[in-house]
Amino acid sequence: MSLIKKIKASINKSSRNKDWPGLIKAYSNWLPVNQSTPLITLKEGNTPLIRATSLEKLIGKEVKVFLKYDGLNPTGSFKDRGMTMAISKAKEEGSEAVICASTGNTSASAAAYAQRAKMKAFVLIPDGYVAKGKLAQALVYGAEVLSIKGNFDKALEIVQEISEKYPITLVNSVNPYRLQGQKTAAFEIIDELGYAPDQLCIPVGNGGNISAYWMGFNEYYEKGFSTVLPRMMGFQAVGSAPLVFNTKVENPETIATAIRIGNPVNRLKANKAKTESHGLFDSVTDDEIINAYKLIGKEGVFCEPASSASVAGLIKNKEKIKEQSTVVCVLTGNGLKDSDCAINNNEATFHTNLEPQIENITKTMGF
Amino acid sequence: MSLIKKIKASINKSSRNKDWPGLIKAYSNWLPVNQSTPLITLKEGNTPLIRATSLEKLIGKEVKVFLKYDGLNPTGSFKDRGMTMAISKAKEEGSEAVICASTGNTSASAAAYAQRAKMKAFVLIPDGYVAKGKLAQALVYGAEVLSIKGNFDKALEIVQEISEKYPITLVNSVNPYRLQGQKTAAFEIIDELGYAPDQLCIPVGNGGNISAYWMGFNEYYEKGFSTVLPRMMGFQAVGSAPLVFNTKVENPETIATAIRIGNPVNRLKANKAKTESHGLFDSVTDDEIINAYKLIGKEGVFCEPASSASVAGLIKNKEKIKEQSTVVCVLTGNGLKDSDCAINNNEATFHTNLEPQIENITKTMGF
Repeated sequence: MSLIKKIKASINKSSRNKDWPGLIKAYSNWLPVNQSTPLITLKEGNTPLIRATSLEKLIGKEVKVFLKYDGLNPTGSFKDRGMTMAISKAKEEGSEAVICASTGNTSASAAAYAQRAKMKAFVLIPDGYVAKGKLAQALVYGAEVLSIKGNFDKALEIVQEISEKYPITLVNSVNPYRLQGQKTAAFEIIDELGYAPDQLCIPVGNGGNISAYWMGFNEYYEKGFSTVLPRMMGFQAVGSAPLVFNTKVENPETIATAIRIGNPVNRLKANKAKTESHGLFDSVTDDEIINAYKLIGKEGVFCEPASSASVAGLIKNKEKIKEQSTVVCVLTGNGLKDSDCAINNNEATFHTNLEPQIENITKTMGF
Repeated sequence: MSLIKKIKASINKSSRNKDWPGLIKAYSNWLPVNQSTPLITLKEGNTPLIRATSLEKLIGKEVKVFLKYDGLNPTGSFKDRGMTMAISKAKEEGSEAVICASTGNTSASAAAYAQRAKMKAFVLIPDGYVAKGKLAQALVYGAEVLSIKGNFDKALEIVQEISEKYPITLVNSVNPYRLQGQKTAAFEIIDELGYAPDQLCIPVGNGGNISAYWMGFNEYYEKGFSTVLPRMMGFQAVGSAPLVFNTKVENPETIATAIRIGNPVNRLKANKAKTESHGLFDSVTDDEIINAYKLIGKEGVFCEPASSASVAGLIKNKEKIKEQSTVVCVLTGNGLKDSDCAINNNEATFHTNLEPQIENITKTMGF
């Protein structure tokens, strides 16, 4: 190229948009990685924070409401944040296979990252209780899928035992690297807003994500990157609410399959996040979850049913939200993972099998 | 907060990661927007460019292969790039309703952005030929969905006529703002690589996206932001290949429903991109598409069948790829939109209905 063109290019380069390298590189100073950690990434993280004005109207009090749409991670859920760390570290340690129990999102994520690391992935899922999109993912990413009679809690017991007896790395959230990766979502929220929100509303299943956010908010706070710590508000489906009711649920039931967990492995950490932040746990019904799901759709955002527990909880607890404060609701997974739920729960007008004549179409449209 | 904390926070702020504001703000100097254009955004764009090492092995010749994973846009396809522009401009012009014909991705995107703009969206789709996830999206985003007996081409004829007779803005890719938004994908590729690729492989349906990329590559080239122009290599499914065979296809057929279009409205522009870039059009069979789909899964990336036409075409034409050159394959949509395709086409091992005893599980795993 001509010299002028070269000079122009180098001048202009600095003003151009920068690539996002994935969360490990972006936040390497905050994570337990070093030069010899292989970087297993699909450029996860950096998900959108979306203003939700119709929810703001519902809450009132000049409250700002944002949706942290983690369904735009590479495999469609927040699990990718933890999995890039867990798989990179497993690879660094020379592991050749990973295993997890899953309601679907963890298995999709583990399968994808293991595939990228040229490792074998085994995933245990509860037979008949995994959304179709998530099963499709585990299969297309080439995991060995084992579907068991029994729920998530049973599957987790089994994989914990297997990982103790065989040379297979466990990548459920008892793996400490998972929460390390997941805490970066809190960093992103503060980086974007310029401040920490006053309240964080989040669905709670196994209790890992609420613990990870709390860790992230604290780390930024301690370094002076934020001046407040959010109240952590965790929400469970009423048929699957062991943290809310401080119990174990033998047979958890809810439409929100991603949080259908009766005995959360991160119970202590989640309780700690709630207590230290002066937060709360509360339950929401499946009807409240579906109502919130539709409201989120009206913001142009499509999440899975479990994700909308955060918004359902916000609406239920709106009296407890401070005036003129900021709320972030975490949307953990992409609605496309469970299309059937949307097809069965929407308020749209759907005309089928129409004759393709313009008069017929415009009449149907109401003209 | 204390003064020291405030000072620390302001020092540290500059080193933190920046938010992505959506493509209109990020590339405002390159787009037909001004201060009075309302910004209708879901933070689209800035999608990952993912190195595909197993594809590189398949191509050989020290070629670098990247996947531009546009399935991570807010509604799961590249259409969001054009729709943020088309809807923002429609809003600016005072329009209250939009209409489109769609194989599914456009309708999902139009519905979401219209919803955010508080506008009404009408979408016409071919009955029975839209992937389930895409239909779910249009419904959850609250569009009025009209499913017609007939294919995409017929639906497009109808909506063009309706938009001429009634005060409804057409947001198919004949709307010039659509291609303006879509060209930003080319900018992102150059911004990330630091140079333009030597070849761009892309699925072709209506011919809009290949035209938009070509526009984007040229605009950066003219400003000296890149020193080469890529060869544009466009691929169609053999049962739906009007550009390859320079004809109209009355009854297009392919598993890749997103490019099941027999009479591309952007035919002239697409031909121009091919000719000016010394590129090519070629057809790929549904079997080649599914083979590529599985290979992409082995990179940890899940795309819809139409997207994998780009990789299928690359593999078919690998003799034409220059040694030591760089190829970018565009993956237009998220695989979660069509989970059934993955469930029916994968090579994974799937054990169902297993008794939840550890001995049974480990035996099944081969231990």
